[in-house]
Amino acid sequence: MTHNVAILGASGYTGAELVRIIATHPNLRIAALSADRKAGQAMGAVFPHLRHLDLPMLTKIEDIDFGDIELVFCALPHGLSQAIVRDLPRSVKVVDLGADFRLRSTEDYKRWYGLDHAAPEMQPEAVYGLTEFYREPIRQARLVAGTGCNAATVQFALRPLIKAGVIDFDDIICDLKNGISGAGRSLKENMLFAERSTDVMGYSIGGKHRHLGELDQEFTMIAGRKLEIMFTPHLVPINRGILATCYVKGEAEGIHAALAKRYADEPFLNVLPFGEAPSMGNVTGSNFCHIGVIGDRKAGRATVIATLDNLNKGSSGQAVQNANLMLGLDETEGLMLAPVFP
Amino acid sequence: MTHNVAILGASGYTGAELVRIIATHPNLRIAALSADRKAGQAMGAVFPHLRHLDLPMLTKIEDIDFGDIELVFCALPHGLSQAIVRDLPRSVKVVDLGADFRLRSTEDYKRWYGLDHAAPEMQPEAVYGLTEFYREPIRQARLVAGTGCNAATVQFALRPLIKAGVIDFDDIICDLKNGISGAGRSLKENMLFAERSTDVMGYSIGGKHRHLGELDQEFTMIAGRKLEIMFTPHLVPINRGILATCYVKGEAEGIHAALAKRYADEPFLNVLPFGEAPSMGNVTGSNFCHIGVIGDRKAGRATVIATLDNLNKGSSGQAVQNANLMLGLDETEGLMLAPVFP
Amino acid sequence: MTHNVAILGASGYTGAELVRIIATHPNLRIAALSADRKAGQAMGAVFPHLRHLDLPMLTKIEDIDFGDIELVFCALPHGLSQAIVRDLPRSVKVVDLGADFRLRSTEDYKRWYGLDHAAPEMQPEAVYGLTEFYREPIRQARLVAGTGCNAATVQFALRPLIKAGVIDFDDIICDLKNGISGAGRSLKENMLFAERSTDVMGYSIGGKHRHLGELDQEFTMIAGRKLEIMFTPHLVPINRGILATCYVKGEAEGIHAALAKRYADEPFLNVLPFGEAPSMGNVTGSNFCHIGVIGDRKAGRATVIATLDNLNKGSSGQAVQNANLMLGLDETEGLMLAPVFP
Amino acid sequence: MTHNVAILGASGYTGAELVRIIATHPNLRIAALSADRKAGQAMGAVFPHLRHLDLPMLTKIEDIDFGDIELVFCALPHGLSQAIVRDLPRSVKVVDLGADFRLRSTEDYKRWYGLDHAAPEMQPEAVYGLTEFYREPIRQARLVAGTGCNAATVQFALRPLIKAGVIDFDDIICDLKNGISGAGRSLKENMLFAERSTDVMGYSIGGKHRHLGELDQEFTMIAGRKLEIMFTPHLVPINRGILATCYVKGEAEGIHAALAKRYADEPFLNVLPFGEAPSMGNVTGSNFCHIGVIGDRKAGRATVIATLDNLNKGSSGQAVQNANLMLGLDETEGLMLAPVFP
Repeated sequence: MTHNVAILGASGYTGAELVRIIATHPNLRIAALSADRKAGQAMGAVFPHLRHLDLPMLTKIEDIDFGDIELVFCALPHGLSQAIVRDLPRSVKVVDLGADFRLRSTEDYKRWYGLDHAAPEMQPEAVYGLTEFYREPIRQARLVAGTGCNAATVQFALRPLIKAGVIDFDDIICDLKNGISGAGRSLKENMLFAERSTDVMGYSIGGKHRHLGELDQEFTMIAGRKLEIMFTPHLVPINRGILATCYVKGEAEGIHAALAKRYADEPFLNVLPFGEAPSMGNVTGSNFCHIGVIGDRKAGRATVIATLDNLNKGSSGQAVQNANLMLGLDETEGLMLAPVFP
Repeated sequence: MTHNVAILGASGYTGAELVRIIATHPNLRIAALSADRKAGQAMGAVFPHLRHLDLPMLTKIEDIDFGDIELVFCALPHGLSQAIVRDLPRSVKVVDLGADFRLRSTEDYKRWYGLDHAAPEMQPEAVYGLTEFYREPIRQARLVAGTGCNAATVQFALRPLIKAGVIDFDDIICDLKNGISGAGRSLKENMLFAERSTDVMGYSIGGKHRHLGELDQEFTMIAGRKLEIMFTPHLVPINRGILATCYVKGEAEGIHAALAKRYADEPFLNVLPFGEAPSMGNVTGSNFCHIGVIGDRKAGRATVIATLDNLNKGSSGQAVQNANLMLGLDETEGLMLAPVFP
Repeated sequence: MTHNVAILGASGYTGAELVRIIATHPNLRIAALSADRKAGQAMGAVFPHLRHLDLPMLTKIEDIDFGDIELVFCALPHGLSQAIVRDLPRSVKVVDLGADFRLRSTEDYKRWYGLDHAAPEMQPEAVYGLTEFYREPIRQARLVAGTGCNAATVQFALRPLIKAGVIDFDDIICDLKNGISGAGRSLKENMLFAERSTDVMGYSIGGKHRHLGELDQEFTMIAGRKLEIMFTPHLVPINRGILATCYVKGEAEGIHAALAKRYADEPFLNVLPFGEAPSMGNVTGSNFCHIGVIGDRKAGRATVIATLDNLNKGSSGQAVQNANLMLGLDETEGLMLAPVFP
Repeated sequence: MTHNVAILGASGYTGAELVRIIATHPNLRIAALSADRKAGQAMGAVFPHLRHLDLPMLTKIEDIDFGDIELVFCALPHGLSQAIVRDLPRSVKVVDLGADFRLRSTEDYKRWYGLDHAAPEMQPEAVYGLTEFYREPIRQARLVAGTGCNAATVQFALRPLIKAGVIDFDDIICDLKNGISGAGRSLKENMLFAERSTDVMGYSIGGKHRHLGELDQEFTMIAGRKLEIMFTPHLVPINRGILATCYVKGEAEGIHAALAKRYADEPFLNVLPFGEAPSMGNVTGSNFCHIGVIGDRKAGRATVIATLDNLNKGSSGQAVQNANLMLGLDETEGLMLAPVFP
């Protein structure tokens, strides 16, 4: 059975990745694409790699007829989704890829994003979109709030460990290496090729990155007490990928066992044999996440490394996975595309 | 219906790309994988990006039972395929991705590759694997000889123009920009990251590149007279992709018309509107080829640019396309994967 | 002896490269740096790689005291230099790195740049800054107009051949591979890292690139008749470098001899042994240009390849070389920095 | 005054970098270059970026006349230097860029490198070559043992903090991002361009990296007690550079003050203003090290980031800096080359 979907904000990288995934998805059909500033253009003009596809023209949101659309992917910058989602017909299911509904507390939203929540009455119905940990609520949800790409990576590495209590909650340090596409297609001098291609730099260092809002929320909830990690993302000259190196205190083999057990039946979360480290390049273009655990010469310390493709499993792949659940489809439908290497 | 296939030489990049494509192909099943030096290892150990797949172990060719295998992809270095293909059971169809059966004349093979042909008696049954131009013979073939990746790119740009006689046969210059994966996984100092990542260099300049053997063969045949082009490949610091800039003498609009007409019904060959130039990054990871024609300020000159992914449309994608035909499947089966961008 | 210089437009890449070169130049001292939009900032804040240097603050041009400045490097976008240079005190020598004074004919300037010349009365005194071919006039000049980086590369490959008449003037094709820094630091979507890092694309194809204005001017002058080449630049994912592959008709060995003879005493122009091809990565960060000549299997054809660093020999290095001459210094002073590899 | 030097192992990247630096050094003259497997070749053939220099031919070590050589740079793989250095005339000073004399204890050498020390009698005279911390002994030394490039980076970040006792010795975590040139020019499959260009991977994780031998030695000595850090290097697709992100417990402003005070007069160690993070691309090709300190939302935690060019400040630049001291030259001679950006 085919389900009609719309993509709002289709001219960004996550919008394009949604189209790429849906292009070979057997049950989804793209019925509308919006992109305010590029309305009137063909998607293949904005993203020529999609030119072989038969797609609707880009349009303004207000020109979309939502009558025949079952589910909307909302790939808009934060601050824009709340009002738009609020005004969609209730018949339409929504997967929001942005940050607007991730934080349960509207005060937290204001604190991390500096904006008043425009649809606070909708926040309670939003389900946090980390599929492997919110599967059943997602199945029932009308509105799913996609996670931050960094937040997804770190949670895949740490949630089962916090849940199982096998690591020290007060000494968790996550050092991330981030592909540049995470910055999106907006124009910033420090995102120019010449600035980034031979550079590595940390950013939002010291607890300033907005994805910490989600991580604090989730980890504190699981731990049953306040839990704040140290977290530093770094830009590396690669398009796609996040590799999170997490330094924890705990018994390495027990840590590995906790992850391996928790993810044994997860189709997209692959725990490597104990002592093996994952590589960012092995998940590019896919919905897979590779996780490794390595012991340390210092007793009681371990390194947990998780890697995924920020545009796919970290964003658009996750969104399709959630949409599959919301539409009653097999969760893996359309998402078994193998990683592209080299 | 599922067809069992084997991949010989699965530990190279084209072998891995075959597995990646077949992973989501609805009708092919990988029944055997060979890799002489890595026999006994799991494919997921050699290529961890494929670790989620349920694949046979790597084995030696002599240990494969070809009884239940319908088609073999042969991704071996040149000089090895001839004897191996010669000794395969006649019941098995063969798609050779290497150079061993591309040249109709065994003297040409000796001249370009420096080796005596080890299976000259088989050469006459080999069909040249440029799908869009040998579709019917490929359907009937038992042995298809995949083209060189550069040779495919240049032929997509020029074959219809030579056939239509709309360009000067004596002044064709093709300047290619080549992704590094074309050099394969073998160890050469000048293929190290540190040597290639900030460099562009031409190689096999002046008419020495082996793919000229094929191009001479095909173009001379179509032209009905000797036709030799100038041809220079250049390594650029990208993994995948070939972009061929072809300088020709002829009327630009007529040239565009000849290409657009010839490829109007081809699912994988996309001719851009007149005056638009294709980008290498728009076909990455896919079986598509984008072709553009641009006029010049000098009357009677035009630039024809074609680009494809050397590992996919230039090699493994073409091989699957040919296998589809040989097995009576839809030609596009498994190959509609959209390009990966960014 | 120390000469005071100013750099106008110091916040762009060529401005930064001038500072880098002058940092270890024994006879030049930077007395003023201008950058309109960044006036008031430290150079080390705009370009942290220069933070160890003791430099004047960035200022507006109108706030510079030109009284103690002997020479000005003008690294401004085209269209801005003419009026500014016109208004500088006559006591100041000027090296313009932009396009504003390159074309002898103000009609040509209008045709290629779409602007009326703002200082037509000054054009006659401007000397074209291709050092190796205008050495004596540059020594005497008050105003030197730096060449286009592409135009320099192509001229180094071809000027002696046109002069010597050893190639066919009507069939010259130059295919260029260009580092991204040539696009400068301005914000354009297609210069983002994510857009460029896995792409090659031609641009200004078919005779539209502005550097053709210079090439037409120079080549026509040398040839004594109208001479127009075909010319296509291509962006490759590298910061610095231009590699020009020039396809010509002529006797390869005679071509090599003409270049080797002409450049025998040139400190920065290195002709490789016959048959060797230069690599872009071997001149990075330096004022050197490597040139190679390779014969072809087709009789009477040759490939001439020249490569240089667009920011250095193609722009700021050339500018310092010219300044050295204008100030009576040794031409190579400060410019013998060896290329950076890998 | 000119001092004659020799470079043993000149065909590797650190050898080439030595030549690049010495090319514009006013007081050093390269009198001999060795490279066993490439003996008989010109340096410009092995490294064409150095072709403009007038250099001695590559030769075997046994063919060098050490009579007129004052200092030898030894850039050989570990395990080879000990016997060679042992047999050099005592009149020759030695800067070893390898690992053979870094560890004071020959048991430590055996433990980390798996080899018996071939010249244990010489170990006591070797001075550890971290210039800024061993300046006076280096001035007097005959044999200086260059540091590991990672070890230098981490020590620049942490030595003053351990010395001042402003951080917790038991919770130091160093996460490194490493340019690929650190792996040298040797042929390994995982160093091919195609393998590295879109990948980030950790290696020698968990306390296995050999540079920990030095770090343990130095930090334990300064701390006056056993001090072991957690340390994970990661390969990033860049040629040159190490960026070490160090997570420590301590008061951030006090940490910054300790570093700023200690390095106030160091010409090559630049401490950024409090709260600023350094970028790898800002030291490329230079002998500078940039260091930043950023506070954290978690009280009592800080992030210290240090970055340098592994081939330059991390190896060949350090070696020249030490040679300057050993020869009685100004320490910065030849080393003020500004970083190359972009």
